[in-house]
Amino acid sequence: MHAYRSHTCAELNKAHAGETVRLSGWVHRVRDHGGVLFIDLRDHYGMTQVLADSDSPAFKAIEKLKAETVVRVDGRVKARDASLVNSKIPTGEIEVYVTDLEVLGPAEELPLLVFGDQEYPEETRLTYRFLDLRREKLHRNMMLRSRVVKSMRDRMWGSGFTEFQTPIITASSPEGARDFLVPSRLHPGKFYALPQAPQQFKQLIMVAGFDRYFQIAPCFRDEDPRADRSPTDFYQLDLEMSFVEQEDVFAAIQPVIQGVFEEFGGGHKVDAVWPRISYADSALWYGTDKPDLRNPIKMARVSEHFAGSGFAIFAKLLEQEGTEIRAIPAPGGGSRKFCDRMNAFAQKEGLPGMGYIFWRKRGIDSSLENTRDFLTEFLSTALKGQPTDGIAERHSAPSSDELDEVKNRIVAAVSEGDFEKAKFIQDAHFGHLDAAGPVAKNIGPERTEAIRRQLGLGEGDAVFFLGGHPAQFEAVAGRARTEIGRELGLTEQNAFRFAWIVDFPMYEKDPETGKIDFSHNPFSMPQGGMEALDGDPLKVLGYQYDLACNGYEIVSGAIRNHRPEIMFRAFALAGYPKEEVENRFGGMVKAFKFGAPPHGGCAAGIDRIVMLLADEQNIREVIMFPMNQRAEDLMMGAPSEPTNQQMRELRLRVTPKE
Amino acid sequence: MHAYRSHTCAELNKAHAGETVRLSGWVHRVRDHGGVLFIDLRDHYGMTQVLADSDSPAFKAIEKLKAETVVRVDGRVKARDASLVNSKIPTGEIEVYVTDLEVLGPAEELPLLVFGDQEYPEETRLTYRFLDLRREKLHRNMMLRSRVVKSMRDRMWGSGFTEFQTPIITASSPEGARDFLVPSRLHPGKFYALPQAPQQFKQLIMVAGFDRYFQIAPCFRDEDPRADRSPTDFYQLDLEMSFVEQEDVFAAIQPVIQGVFEEFGGGHKVDAVWPRISYADSALWYGTDKPDLRNPIKMARVSEHFAGSGFAIFAKLLEQEGTEIRAIPAPGGGSRKFCDRMNAFAQKEGLPGMGYIFWRKRGIDSSLENTRDFLTEFLSTALKGQPTDGIAERHSAPSSDELDEVKNRIVAAVSEGDFEKAKFIQDAHFGHLDAAGPVAKNIGPERTEAIRRQLGLGEGDAVFFLGGHPAQFEAVAGRARTEIGRELGLTEQNAFRFAWIVDFPMYEKDPETGKIDFSHNPFSMPQGGMEALDGDPLKVLGYQYDLACNGYEIVSGAIRNHRPEIMFRAFALAGYPKEEVENRFGGMVKAFKFGAPPHGGCAAGIDRIVMLLADEQNIREVIMFPMNQRAEDLMMGAPSEPTNQQMRELRLRVTPKE
Repeated sequence: MHAYRSHTCAELNKAHAGETVRLSGWVHRVRDHGGVLFIDLRDHYGMTQVLADSDSPAFKAIEKLKAETVVRVDGRVKARDASLVNSKIPTGEIEVYVTDLEVLGPAEELPLLVFGDQEYPEETRLTYRFLDLRREKLHRNMMLRSRVVKSMRDRMWGSGFTEFQTPIITASSPEGARDFLVPSRLHPGKFYALPQAPQQFKQLIMVAGFDRYFQIAPCFRDEDPRADRSPTDFYQLDLEMSFVEQEDVFAAIQPVIQGVFEEFGGGHKVDAVWPRISYADSALWYGTDKPDLRNPIKMARVSEHFAGSGFAIFAKLLEQEGTEIRAIPAPGGGSRKFCDRMNAFAQKEGLPGMGYIFWRKRGIDSSLENTRDFLTEFLSTALKGQPTDGIAERHSAPSSDELDEVKNRIVAAVSEGDFEKAKFIQDAHFGHLDAAGPVAKNIGPERTEAIRRQLGLGEGDAVFFLGGHPAQFEAVAGRARTEIGRELGLTEQNAFRFAWIVDFPMYEKDPETGKIDFSHNPFSMPQGGMEALDGDPLKVLGYQYDLACNGYEIVSGAIRNHRPEIMFRAFALAGYPKEEVENRFGGMVKAFKFGAPPHGGCAAGIDRIVMLLADEQNIREVIMFPMNQRAEDLMMGAPSEPTNQQMRELRLRVTPKE
Repeated sequence: MHAYRSHTCAELNKAHAGETVRLSGWVHRVRDHGGVLFIDLRDHYGMTQVLADSDSPAFKAIEKLKAETVVRVDGRVKARDASLVNSKIPTGEIEVYVTDLEVLGPAEELPLLVFGDQEYPEETRLTYRFLDLRREKLHRNMMLRSRVVKSMRDRMWGSGFTEFQTPIITASSPEGARDFLVPSRLHPGKFYALPQAPQQFKQLIMVAGFDRYFQIAPCFRDEDPRADRSPTDFYQLDLEMSFVEQEDVFAAIQPVIQGVFEEFGGGHKVDAVWPRISYADSALWYGTDKPDLRNPIKMARVSEHFAGSGFAIFAKLLEQEGTEIRAIPAPGGGSRKFCDRMNAFAQKEGLPGMGYIFWRKRGIDSSLENTRDFLTEFLSTALKGQPTDGIAERHSAPSSDELDEVKNRIVAAVSEGDFEKAKFIQDAHFGHLDAAGPVAKNIGPERTEAIRRQLGLGEGDAVFFLGGHPAQFEAVAGRARTEIGRELGLTEQNAFRFAWIVDFPMYEKDPETGKIDFSHNPFSMPQGGMEALDGDPLKVLGYQYDLACNGYEIVSGAIRNHRPEIMFRAFALAGYPKEEVENRFGGMVKAFKFGAPPHGGCAAGIDRIVMLLADEQNIREVIMFPMNQRAEDLMMGAPSEPTNQQMRELRLRVTPKE
């Protein structure tokens, strides 16, 4: 018999009854049922119940076993009585009567219990990661991650891509984030860098004549940590293709991502059609370039309704150049309580608050009956039997002067043949909806109605407003949208919703210095090529794209700028002279001079995708041995002090704190 | 039609004749056949011949094309005349008549020609790696490598292993080689290290309860470069298993390696049975722990034949403790010319030379006839008709006293019934073989014959001798064996021969200081466990093993020491106190205290395996973007000077050269 096991802990069933078997695993827990000791014996594959009574030679040893001890047991398989069968586990039909037990790996008192659901501080979990990983959730997450990566890889090979490994100890290549440096011993004073991404190498692979590259690539960025980002290394599915346009890249990556979400998404809905949304629209509609489309709320520009209105704050704001008023519709949010809560949310986010309107059914005001009757008749005739919105009631009676003025305007509109206008005025003043909130009062019924119509809202709905320079409130607006969708239960559950965000601007202007710089990847091909670069840089869009899923950016890519002359011009616009470009990206620029194919690609964030599939909020739950938020490995004790010899060999000295 | 291509350059055949197509690729070369211009258009997939005559609107553009320009061509597919079909390429049945051509990526004058077989200095090849990679050999090697890695991965998944990624920015873990360090910005003065191998992490994965791990893992060692080793990062197929013994690991990895060699070995013979050879035997037989078994030569210990012999150098040497004489048999090497060449080889390797004997047919010496006749008759009778080696002739006549003495000894042996001895003496003195060389003369016919018999040599064969402390000449002996096998054509071609080298010693003694240290991996389980550690450390063997193939170590592994108390003892023997072990390997040692399973594994060197499969001598031929021998990336310009800001952020300063 094998030294350690004849079967795994997930393998035995009724058919094995009577057999002599050998199992090895961890003591998940020991239970004493009055003279009979039960062990839940656990291994990677599952759990088997083993037992011993006082007749068993192993009884005394089992009495002394601590949880998480590794043991080998020999025993006989017994079918359980029907009443004792546990149908939840594959081995639930049997148990193993122990005849011999050997401790293979003793366990001390545990700082973190594997059995049970007790929560532990992150420091404990990371210091004893090897214990935390034995728990069901992390074990499952790690297996999921592994299968997701395999599935991606298989799908890439299946689509004709070839995986190549690119260097990890390489040249510094400033791509936005900060490099990790590696001092060279053979060349003291010089440093290698770890790649932020294989960006330049994959482009060089295309220039080298390979057609469809991919790699499950480790990437390194010395960034300040946050929940959905590892502070040191992370993995991406990196791909690049030659002789392609943007839609070719989409067609290549969509089946891979969609397939993985269908395969591992736990039955969540996965769309087969992924909308393309321009960067500008995404910012306007969702306040972010990584929208969560499970949330149906789409924001809108409503400046026109506030310009010159009685809502002085917004009216004045709009006199400044570049300002806008935007609306966040909140279907079903039509209660003062909800609106006040959202207002408080905005204040917590650092805004003075969000103006709002909400709509409720109008009450009856008998003093308006005459007007109503007149208009009902008048409009029915004028609109030749077309349905009208119905003439409703108002709580507060307007003055008869006002009433007359509105009446006259409706009559005038009808006489001009503008029935739409007539209906609109009628709805605004006498419709069955009452618009509540200070904004509505200030801008009056017709502007309010215009907003309602633009946004398609109705009874029981609300709308929130934010104004100013979009760059200053877009992000908050996006978060408010998320909050509203969540609070109102609008955001779809059990679905993954994807969208390609396209047409990113190539450049942005620093609001303080006025300096033009690249807003995203400087290596992207500007739409319109060289000619586009002769116009206003801020209007130049790039062939650059992101894939958003449920509020996360999970893929990012571009069609590359493979023409040195266009690249030099693009960099020049951002203030980089030719020499600097050649100096910083020398390898790639040189390569482009010797026959570069048009090419493009993208990279998918694996950690983040697995996080979505595992329904986790923190990336550390899907990484085997993660760093903590301070970029420390508490288990291995990294980073640590170098030895003097190491520092001597590298000819380095640490300078004192300033 | 697609912007760049309707077909690849390997896709068109006779069936496409008449179609209008679009191709993109590199201008491999342009030929002018008197008014008709031919382009060999190349892409990743293959080559297509396109042409234009002076009627073609593209003619003028083609005239100006430089090699390696990237172009798009539109054209009509034409079947070639039967006489012009090129059966060597898939597209050889057709050509494409160009109607339109666009330059997608211009090319300057090339520093390295893609077309043709011209050789270039390594510096040019590495600086313009993207051009070198377009050449057929490197392109093929890269594709081979990629497929080998995929095959390994598929085989590992198929055997129930799961791939996990382990950290790359992690803790320093001294495992023999030098670490690459990464300064921490968040913790100035502290450093991360890049893993020399995922050794500790894979062991922690086992302790964390996963059963069969593998990873195509990047490894980092700051080692001085050599031909079969990358100076920075390299890849290994890393695996680890729980609840296993040595043979389980062999059974897991053999099908993977064997399968890959069968799949990609170009039809070379691949053994299915891999011998296990102890480290001690391998050193004795092959002078190395990575023997090339295609070479059938097996060295042997022959000290007994020299002890007290007339060959004074060896006889005296053997009086020192620990010395040995070893023989390298050279079947077919029996000529003075060959023996002298090998002697010269040994001198080039720094030895005073190699003694040798070689055997040839004896000439006839009529003065011996009487003796011969007597012995023929005498022995025929004594041996009762058994075949004898025949009584032959000697060139130089011995004195009759000598003859009588030999005769008498034969007669005595026969009368004692020791026919073997009688035959031996007879063969030594009168056999049909004449042993040539000074060694034979010095030690005399009987010792010479004893050596011949031990080694199974015969007419036309030779043997070489080396003596001294084995550690001092084993490596040279191994190289001489290789040289002899090669020179004599004994080394098998077109075969991959594997052997497991097992039973490595745990410890070795520094010959100068006398200090005991680990000879290989300190984490291996000593054979015999704790008890073995109580005896002579130099006799302790480890459960440690290597796989040798054709003279390369391609796999290395061990059953691990998972018991902290045995580990502390093992380290103590090598002079490391408990505190230091806990300090250096804290994460792992701590983990072993909370229930560690018995486990073991191995790692296969991917670059080296691909090198063998691609029949390359240098590892740079199978790495996409390799460093040069000085650990520089000439294409990307790494390593390079850091910026002042980077150094400030890391709080580092470069110290002046001492």
